[in-house]
Amino acid sequence: MGEVFSDAARLQHMLEFEAALARAGARCGVIPPAAAQAIASKCKVDLVDAKALATATAVSLNPAIPLVKQLTALVANDDPEAARFVHWGATSQDVNDTGLVLQIRQALDILEADLAALCGGLNQLAQTHRSTLMAGRTLMQHALPTTFGVKVAGWLDAMNRHRERFTETRARVLVLQFGGAVGTLAALREKGLQVAEALAAELHLGLPFVPWHTQRDRVAEAATTLGLCTGTLGKIARDISLHMQTEIAEVFEPAGEGRGGSSTMPHKRNPVSAAIVLSAATRVPGLVSTMLSAMVQEDERGLGDWHAEWETLPEIFRLTAGALHQMATIVPHLEVDAARMKRNLDATQGLIFAEAVTMALGSQIGKAAAHTLVEGASRLARESGKHLREVLAQDRAVAERLTSTELDRLFAPENYLGVAEELVDRVIDASRKHG
Amino acid sequence: MGEVFSDAARLQHMLEFEAALARAGARCGVIPPAAAQAIASKCKVDLVDAKALATATAVSLNPAIPLVKQLTALVANDDPEAARFVHWGATSQDVNDTGLVLQIRQALDILEADLAALCGGLNQLAQTHRSTLMAGRTLMQHALPTTFGVKVAGWLDAMNRHRERFTETRARVLVLQFGGAVGTLAALREKGLQVAEALAAELHLGLPFVPWHTQRDRVAEAATTLGLCTGTLGKIARDISLHMQTEIAEVFEPAGEGRGGSSTMPHKRNPVSAAIVLSAATRVPGLVSTMLSAMVQEDERGLGDWHAEWETLPEIFRLTAGALHQMATIVPHLEVDAARMKRNLDATQGLIFAEAVTMALGSQIGKAAAHTLVEGASRLARESGKHLREVLAQDRAVAERLTSTELDRLFAPENYLGVAEELVDRVIDASRKHG
Amino acid sequence: MGEVFSDAARLQHMLEFEAALARAGARCGVIPPAAAQAIASKCKVDLVDAKALATATAVSLNPAIPLVKQLTALVANDDPEAARFVHWGATSQDVNDTGLVLQIRQALDILEADLAALCGGLNQLAQTHRSTLMAGRTLMQHALPTTFGVKVAGWLDAMNRHRERFTETRARVLVLQFGGAVGTLAALREKGLQVAEALAAELHLGLPFVPWHTQRDRVAEAATTLGLCTGTLGKIARDISLHMQTEIAEVFEPAGEGRGGSSTMPHKRNPVSAAIVLSAATRVPGLVSTMLSAMVQEDERGLGDWHAEWETLPEIFRLTAGALHQMATIVPHLEVDAARMKRNLDATQGLIFAEAVTMALGSQIGKAAAHTLVEGASRLARESGKHLREVLAQDRAVAERLTSTELDRLFAPENYLGVAEELVDRVIDASRKHG
Amino acid sequence: MGEVFSDAARLQHMLEFEAALARAGARCGVIPPAAAQAIASKCKVDLVDAKALATATAVSLNPAIPLVKQLTALVANDDPEAARFVHWGATSQDVNDTGLVLQIRQALDILEADLAALCGGLNQLAQTHRSTLMAGRTLMQHALPTTFGVKVAGWLDAMNRHRERFTETRARVLVLQFGGAVGTLAALREKGLQVAEALAAELHLGLPFVPWHTQRDRVAEAATTLGLCTGTLGKIARDISLHMQTEIAEVFEPAGEGRGGSSTMPHKRNPVSAAIVLSAATRVPGLVSTMLSAMVQEDERGLGDWHAEWETLPEIFRLTAGALHQMATIVPHLEVDAARMKRNLDATQGLIFAEAVTMALGSQIGKAAAHTLVEGASRLARESGKHLREVLAQDRAVAERLTSTELDRLFAPENYLGVAEELVDRVIDASRKHG
Repeated sequence: MGEVFSDAARLQHMLEFEAALARAGARCGVIPPAAAQAIASKCKVDLVDAKALATATAVSLNPAIPLVKQLTALVANDDPEAARFVHWGATSQDVNDTGLVLQIRQALDILEADLAALCGGLNQLAQTHRSTLMAGRTLMQHALPTTFGVKVAGWLDAMNRHRERFTETRARVLVLQFGGAVGTLAALREKGLQVAEALAAELHLGLPFVPWHTQRDRVAEAATTLGLCTGTLGKIARDISLHMQTEIAEVFEPAGEGRGGSSTMPHKRNPVSAAIVLSAATRVPGLVSTMLSAMVQEDERGLGDWHAEWETLPEIFRLTAGALHQMATIVPHLEVDAARMKRNLDATQGLIFAEAVTMALGSQIGKAAAHTLVEGASRLARESGKHLREVLAQDRAVAERLTSTELDRLFAPENYLGVAEELVDRVIDASRKHG
Repeated sequence: MGEVFSDAARLQHMLEFEAALARAGARCGVIPPAAAQAIASKCKVDLVDAKALATATAVSLNPAIPLVKQLTALVANDDPEAARFVHWGATSQDVNDTGLVLQIRQALDILEADLAALCGGLNQLAQTHRSTLMAGRTLMQHALPTTFGVKVAGWLDAMNRHRERFTETRARVLVLQFGGAVGTLAALREKGLQVAEALAAELHLGLPFVPWHTQRDRVAEAATTLGLCTGTLGKIARDISLHMQTEIAEVFEPAGEGRGGSSTMPHKRNPVSAAIVLSAATRVPGLVSTMLSAMVQEDERGLGDWHAEWETLPEIFRLTAGALHQMATIVPHLEVDAARMKRNLDATQGLIFAEAVTMALGSQIGKAAAHTLVEGASRLARESGKHLREVLAQDRAVAERLTSTELDRLFAPENYLGVAEELVDRVIDASRKHG
Repeated sequence: MGEVFSDAARLQHMLEFEAALARAGARCGVIPPAAAQAIASKCKVDLVDAKALATATAVSLNPAIPLVKQLTALVANDDPEAARFVHWGATSQDVNDTGLVLQIRQALDILEADLAALCGGLNQLAQTHRSTLMAGRTLMQHALPTTFGVKVAGWLDAMNRHRERFTETRARVLVLQFGGAVGTLAALREKGLQVAEALAAELHLGLPFVPWHTQRDRVAEAATTLGLCTGTLGKIARDISLHMQTEIAEVFEPAGEGRGGSSTMPHKRNPVSAAIVLSAATRVPGLVSTMLSAMVQEDERGLGDWHAEWETLPEIFRLTAGALHQMATIVPHLEVDAARMKRNLDATQGLIFAEAVTMALGSQIGKAAAHTLVEGASRLARESGKHLREVLAQDRAVAERLTSTELDRLFAPENYLGVAEELVDRVIDASRKHG
Repeated sequence: MGEVFSDAARLQHMLEFEAALARAGARCGVIPPAAAQAIASKCKVDLVDAKALATATAVSLNPAIPLVKQLTALVANDDPEAARFVHWGATSQDVNDTGLVLQIRQALDILEADLAALCGGLNQLAQTHRSTLMAGRTLMQHALPTTFGVKVAGWLDAMNRHRERFTETRARVLVLQFGGAVGTLAALREKGLQVAEALAAELHLGLPFVPWHTQRDRVAEAATTLGLCTGTLGKIARDISLHMQTEIAEVFEPAGEGRGGSSTMPHKRNPVSAAIVLSAATRVPGLVSTMLSAMVQEDERGLGDWHAEWETLPEIFRLTAGALHQMATIVPHLEVDAARMKRNLDATQGLIFAEAVTMALGSQIGKAAAHTLVEGASRLARESGKHLREVLAQDRAVAERLTSTELDRLFAPENYLGVAEELVDRVIDASRKHG
């Protein structure tokens, strides 16, 4: 992703716009075909003096201005006549915006491939652990038994929604920006729309109803869509890092040469991928807020807002792509310790089965009464260090209503999973449509 | 919108969930029909002791817990047997989340109505001013002539995209949350999905593939969709406020009793609606970033993240709704001073026509040479205080190429509008599909 | 804190400004003493029609305007002559800003009291657990032994810095704003500064060099200072919540009636205070960014930026105050399970002592060689399930260099605490100066 | 500033830490003096294989780990014995943090120099325009006359406060971080504090009471202090850009080769420095929120939060430094058109003097009555296109109370400036203490 948003790639996409503009102009009879060919032949990033360009950009605040100057000079060297038609009808911002759209297209291709890979990995993981028992935790405390499969299915289900969002965003953002200085295409007179149409076709981009340069919702939406995706990635990474804690030890990132070592503690095995993802999830929200703030642009070109986007959106792409790639890489190789998951279910001396008992008693004595009874027994278990099953077995009110066999059944986690397995199946079924 | 997110409305929606849950439970044979009826009859916000609830919520951090307690007591008063089945199979978070979804549905209805009204107003405005000349401005400087119509068409086009986004978001966010304590519906055993389906039908909500409580992308997307919309509203408000400046005086918010007055300056007429909208556009980005940050929720229920959403999302709805309503209200009544717009075109002694001249000369001597020539003439005009047309007329290189009539034509703004009018028509045409 | 920023308190502070202004005006001979008395006697929030005011504010966007109108009418009822001098020389924004400063003063008093209480609690806790052994954790993995005291000392040390910051911020923010419509005090002619001085004295506020209304760094600094403090509170809460996890169980929030219960799981004991604090730490950063964004205010009064602050700053105060109060309340009553802390040190079969062994060997064979050796032994221990001490004892290279007694000494956590206890003492000593 | 935060500078500062650590260790008898010398001689960034380092960092997520490895190898080449003592007693995070502190020190030096230069420029500007009349504007509308001097004095006053804040922040952030793996300095046993003290002295940094690695308030404060400063810079840039608008044309950024040109409009003169500053003011708030969010770090080293700071803080420094430098550069060369400022005061046909008239009448008929009277006359003036002075002269109620001479006096802006000039003097006086 770094490459998609490198300076070179940016310039190449801008030159691609200039080449396509020349060809479109020629097709519409606005510039001579020979000029178009002469121009297109110089639209190569290798011909650009990148250093001179960077210096000039710092003064003009707009890379398109010195780029067009360099391109014009390059063309003029060989064909002074053709040089007159470089950038014909466009404004610098058309180059910047459409160049950005082309970068976004390439970036979305990469992101969607990793997203598909991640979903494949999660799908497999959910199937493998469809019935793997583990403690469900709420507010960082054991709550009820669940399965690792249902947890992974939740991750996958969210990722499937992100795939939908990417598709929808793509349709709105992958369009041409071409309006001339103030969006009227005045320099092309009555041929403006014709050239615009040809240009969009050249670049395989949609043709918008009206130039959109100061309507930044298209690019800002790219930022919010990525922001939402990174949020979910952060949630998955948080879960993994919690399960990987020394005392919990249920799920581990794959180990690897140099991965997660420490300069002083040779035994350390750190969740480095989770760290990368969580770092991205910490950074992206502030960057998205910048993109939204920058939408308030003045008139036909804003002052400073557009520049605020300039480094922010690529940063969001880089962070999201990095996080997504890490997750797609580790998910197929996560080490899951199902035995430890099961052992951890015992950490509360049976308290994790409190709800199961409450429901069983509740159907006989009412939920509120059952809740009170089990709450008391739980307190006693905690204070005395006894197992909840033992405390309950000694309680007369319970003994009258539940046999020892019934109690055994209630304290077996596999008997209190509700529809966990069906939920996993539902998500896996639904994933099929994403291929 | 304040009402949709009032405490009372929130509780009413939560009680709606409890009533529907009871009916669904009865329909699936999980609780007795009589109990369902008894419960549903008490699901009225007027019966709740709001003060006691607020106190208890501050301790439990979860309004659903004391609400269910109060409801149980209310039912028990009349029918102790039915009271046993209150909240059967649900967890507090199911009530909170589905209650929130119901609020969001109501809020989206209001927003979409105002959005439609705003688009109607913009449509009319664009048509009226399809050919109204004004200065196009870039970086807060005059650039080229444009029309007010094309500016408004740009606003409208963005708003049409927001309507699309609202529709897409609606489909993902308006779904049931029902999972029990850890998302397995364990308390309902094998009947979980059946009850879930019935409950979704009762509430006219979609049934998700898997409970989604800690997958917050659905609600976070509501926030980002609103954030994008508020960004565009801010852009429109910024434009209006710039045009309303004392020295520019082209567009005015409608005047009204008490609107925009000053305690000390009786002559002031302030852009108060623009202020409200810009205030929202300043606040929403930070709030959206909070929603994205809060997506990183632990395991089956997060610690603090969910609480961070609790007041943030309603605030985003309130601000967006307020901004949207202001804009929908003023747009049909904007005062547009077309004469002043035209007069302001003269503010630069003809410099605004520099590009037109450059293009005309460029087709004869090449764009770069023309640019240099006109740049020099512009400098001379600025320094001497003469009109650019006059400076050019006295330039030999120009006189050889452009006749006086041609110069006249170049300095008439209506001759340098490109496809402005067609662009307005395109957007108006496209708006038809939104009705 | 809710009360400091209630509508009533806000109005009361604004009226306090009006009363002081009248008195100052009289003192400087600008208005008649009798008028001052008549005005001051009506500056009581109980006399205000709050509902009418709210309605009018929604239109004027500025509560000071209708408030001054109501006050004038109230005074006029009794003394029409005096009514002429209400708000003499001020602009509505002077009332809003100085009223806000008075609220901030009251809010800082409350915050600083809770901050002192929290520091007291942390001080005590650090002393009690100066030598309580526990696992130091990095990247959520066991690293080396440490003491709970040194961890708490780190919390306390940060809190002491926040006390310094509050003091510094106080000096800059607690100043009068009084400038008239554009900051020149024109309405008071040559008496402007004299009245300003008298007014500052009346309100016990500093007199700034120049009115500062659109220079928002003073109020924005209040936001950043609170933001920094909330960040540290969030760090403490995160630590507590991690230690309170079911499998770790080292530190617990105090239990209490209704605290941390669950509607379905009677055994749950949730870290509710940590949840409140973490929620605040999730929300405040976005709100601070809004305050910083809102600093870019136009000319002598901004459009919308100031309104963006209006609800944001109080929200930051409320959240910080809530978080601080929770923390100050629970810290003196935290339940610390020192035995469990010690037991958890064993969770890694001795790997936590790897660095100690590395350092001991390193002084003989060099750090790099020792690191490699111990890394290998750690891997073997992990894979074989043996204790690291045992693996090392069987290693020839180790046996040649470390006796069994030396190994015993290396595997006793109390022997590898470095200067932990001195660090605790240093922080406690340094805390003395804060009283 | 780019150079201070370049990869090379970062590494050099980290190596400076390693060299100082070796010297401090030798001074305290912890490592042999010869080893210290051998190590220090290799602590040069030119000796580092930057490419290998970058690759290794991507895996370990921590540049200090591969850097120490490389340094050890470099030392070992010449002196295998000395190589054993590289990084003795430190952890990778000590290197990262203290290296960062050294960068911050250098960055603050640069920022403070530019801040001093800017204040010098503003001081001069305020003096020059102490009495230059211009329209004061509120809510982007003319309000009352003011002077350009008083506006600049407001900018300067805020900048002086930022200088104070920099000084205070410096004291808290420029301290050593040195704690070993979990902050106990265990690897140095009882010598930990002695080495820490020597190390702080070597680096001319303060010695904190306790290692602070996961207490990020120190570095986050650097971010908030810069954020506040950038907010003020944004306010100044906004003002300049508003005054530079085509129709207002009061203040101009200095023109320069390549500055503010356009690729298509040869006449454009854009506020490019304002654009850079406003871009920074749009970006920094979101980045500051990231720094605050990242404060919630787990235990003795956080997971991902610290990494989130890694690029964010340098970005804040770069943006603030860029904005500050732009402003310091243009302020001494701003072109101020005092004649145009005066002419613009006439833009409202005298309405800008409405308050002056109101106050004059108010002292005779009461403020409310005067307000109503002048409000009516203002409306009439606006509607009829007449000058307010003329409308008032024709009003009987006015004619009875104000003579023609008095009216003339009221409509002269220099007579309604209040204490504007004294305010300028106060700020200039106060600036003296900053030198």
